[in-house]
Amino acid sequence: MVTTAPARQALSSLSGFPEWLPAGRVIEQYFLDTLRRTFELHGFSGIETRAVEPVSQLTKKGETSKEVYLLSRLQADPAETESADPAKQLGLHFDLTVPFARYVLDNAGLLTFPFKRYQIQKVWRGERPQEGRFREFNQADIDIVGDGALALHHDVDVPLVMHEALSRLPIPPVTIHLSNRKVAQGFYQSLGVADANLIEVLRVVDKLDKIGPEAVATELVSVVGTTQAQARAALDLSAVTGSDPQEVSARVLAALDGAQPTGLLTEGLEELTVVLTAAARRRPGAIIADLKIARGLDYYTGTVYESFMAGHEDLGSVCSGGRYDSLASNGKRTFPGVGISIGVSRLLSRVMAAGLLDVTRAVPTAVLVAVTDEEHRGASDAVADTLRARGVPADVAPSAARFGKQIRYADRRGIPFVWFPGGEGEQDSVKDIRSGEQVEADAATWEPADPADLAPRLLAPGDQGDTRRGA
Amino acid sequence: MVTTAPARQALSSLSGFPEWLPAGRVIEQYFLDTLRRTFELHGFSGIETRAVEPVSQLTKKGETSKEVYLLSRLQADPAETESADPAKQLGLHFDLTVPFARYVLDNAGLLTFPFKRYQIQKVWRGERPQEGRFREFNQADIDIVGDGALALHHDVDVPLVMHEALSRLPIPPVTIHLSNRKVAQGFYQSLGVADANLIEVLRVVDKLDKIGPEAVATELVSVVGTTQAQARAALDLSAVTGSDPQEVSARVLAALDGAQPTGLLTEGLEELTVVLTAAARRRPGAIIADLKIARGLDYYTGTVYESFMAGHEDLGSVCSGGRYDSLASNGKRTFPGVGISIGVSRLLSRVMAAGLLDVTRAVPTAVLVAVTDEEHRGASDAVADTLRARGVPADVAPSAARFGKQIRYADRRGIPFVWFPGGEGEQDSVKDIRSGEQVEADAATWEPADPADLAPRLLAPGDQGDTRRGA
Repeated sequence: MVTTAPARQALSSLSGFPEWLPAGRVIEQYFLDTLRRTFELHGFSGIETRAVEPVSQLTKKGETSKEVYLLSRLQADPAETESADPAKQLGLHFDLTVPFARYVLDNAGLLTFPFKRYQIQKVWRGERPQEGRFREFNQADIDIVGDGALALHHDVDVPLVMHEALSRLPIPPVTIHLSNRKVAQGFYQSLGVADANLIEVLRVVDKLDKIGPEAVATELVSVVGTTQAQARAALDLSAVTGSDPQEVSARVLAALDGAQPTGLLTEGLEELTVVLTAAARRRPGAIIADLKIARGLDYYTGTVYESFMAGHEDLGSVCSGGRYDSLASNGKRTFPGVGISIGVSRLLSRVMAAGLLDVTRAVPTAVLVAVTDEEHRGASDAVADTLRARGVPADVAPSAARFGKQIRYADRRGIPFVWFPGGEGEQDSVKDIRSGEQVEADAATWEPADPADLAPRLLAPGDQGDTRRGA
Repeated sequence: MVTTAPARQALSSLSGFPEWLPAGRVIEQYFLDTLRRTFELHGFSGIETRAVEPVSQLTKKGETSKEVYLLSRLQADPAETESADPAKQLGLHFDLTVPFARYVLDNAGLLTFPFKRYQIQKVWRGERPQEGRFREFNQADIDIVGDGALALHHDVDVPLVMHEALSRLPIPPVTIHLSNRKVAQGFYQSLGVADANLIEVLRVVDKLDKIGPEAVATELVSVVGTTQAQARAALDLSAVTGSDPQEVSARVLAALDGAQPTGLLTEGLEELTVVLTAAARRRPGAIIADLKIARGLDYYTGTVYESFMAGHEDLGSVCSGGRYDSLASNGKRTFPGVGISIGVSRLLSRVMAAGLLDVTRAVPTAVLVAVTDEEHRGASDAVADTLRARGVPADVAPSAARFGKQIRYADRRGIPFVWFPGGEGEQDSVKDIRSGEQVEADAATWEPADPADLAPRLLAPGDQGDTRRGA
């Protein structure tokens, strides 16, 4: 007996706006709670920002403007609409970095720096429906922000915290891939590629997985105008990966093929070395250098992170981030920051679709208290209230049907225990409907033999989970 | 030492979109966690619905249409905009009832009934800015929904669960006020007031607190067209309040002044009696009948709830709800429901503005691990990781400044303990910076003397909270 709850997605009439059935929500909540718990263990304060920002704020970087949802009031006064100040036009935030930077500036005088915050909220992107992408999803971010300066060691903290959180989830292992804007920019400087061409070079290198090295080299020469040697060096740089900082640095320098490293390249390699060294000591295997990373190097100014889930590399990076020399600035003060962000809904959707997860039950209820007859409902309510006061989630049968039907009510929901009030002078009893075992019990003292039965439990494939002895 | 964190609201440049500083968010999170925990103890499943619904769905009840925020894509194709099907126009939900009813219909075949769900989410209302109302706020709802039928005893469960949750919060006591649409409608029927005039009568009676009984009586006669006797009876009904069901019923019948009660009135009084009787047994003092309630009687079909916080009656009802004979229907199946909803942000904003709450610290961190010098940062990281693995939230000092400065870093954040790694062959030590007491310690076994120090703690006014012995 006791069936596990299928963690199916709910039926939603709007594509791109995912909803979960209760079982799926149990899993999502477990993910969100685990992230929150890990972030708090590392001293990150939770904040939430409003869902809306002025569009002028959201579209500072032109390339994201197409993804913004604008807001208008259904019954706005015509005067209000006509005189609408575009600077006051509101849109839904599409990430948590833009709102966080604004929050830091708004409250700079009230926060203490370095400020470590986590933020777990919905974000919205006005993607075209046919692309099948999420238009609403949960995102979880951690950032550390300094006032004026921010020590490099924080670049190690941020990915390790996220890695620790992900390692607590029942998903395949995730590896964080590391690069550094200074390494890339310094490398191309050293080769004699003009800084003005850097973004174009990175744009082409970013196609490596899609079009292959030959096509990348061709495009670097024909479109960007690099030399053959520069194109070959770009491919050599992209092939550098590993967790030993000395070896990584040596290979990057070797890829220069004799060219002299600039100061920027040296500085970048030093930063990469510091992060890799500390990471290897604190969480061996969590982080590897991967100089192929090109995305994000146009806006991050130092360390850059991407990360991949074993067996699900096709999903792309599951969490990404990096360092900004200036996450926010008000002219007088500059706030550097380093952070990493995970798209929880996308990750969850993948592991659920792959059938990687199930849950013992879709309800929080551990005990269903049976009702003998409607006149004695009060006795069942009293049992349930006693159990709840002791932290045992309990429900009372909705009708005084025959006991077989009440047990079936529990079984259909995966509730493991059914409680039978004893009536006048009789002892209560409780039945584990998975094993069929029934014992006398007192609501003021009873506890399940396995405390894990108090809450729904996640099951990986093949996991027996609730040990269905009587199944 | 160790200052408490002021739970101030953050500076937000948009009125109506509240944000909290980290200390305020600790309090908000405590409220939300307490609600969730209580709802789960009672067997309610958590769900979330998407933030958007088709506008046609949101505006089914015309009177709310003015509050809806519409969505449009910033860079929508002109073709897309011109051919826009108004039925597909999306808006942000303004409550959680409309989306829940839609969710029940979408997933009727996949849910088990009666379905008990809680939902804690942001909602949005396009209020005019100058009204100073919230345009974005957290709402928490519980509902129980049946398939075809739903037993009356659920009308008791719902307000008692909410009352239990509120009683766990450090706020003044809340009392739930109860009325019933059938009592009101049946009462006016019995007096000979036409059903067609019921809504108008209720609209006028709803002004009682604002304009007083004399003006209400006058308006009932002059605007609605009741007789003087009917108007007087309406005032008599409005004066009925109390927790004894027999007395309440007797006073309602007495207010008829000799008129014969209709079947609907009798049915309504029976329902009121069942709810009051069970409530008095399970949570004495939680619920009183209050026949003055007129709001909501136009859409609820039976039991109606409002609730007031002692000393803050001017805030109006802090949570409200009631029963719908048809919460949702798809033509073939009808789903009755009963629920109650609380505007968390409004409640929180009031108790925080009233200075009723403070918090021991704004960060989750219990221990700051000091750094002797940057070369030994790894030793401090190791201590922090050991503490975290044992559930102790820990942070590492951002710089190896002199210890006095590192202690001040902890003090400014309200972190109670500072840990000093011992160096070669020396024992570590930990200092309670509130008392100044410093003892030798091992990260693998240390625990704070008071386990409550592991997390930020809410303080009511006058509460010493963190026992500042050394202050």
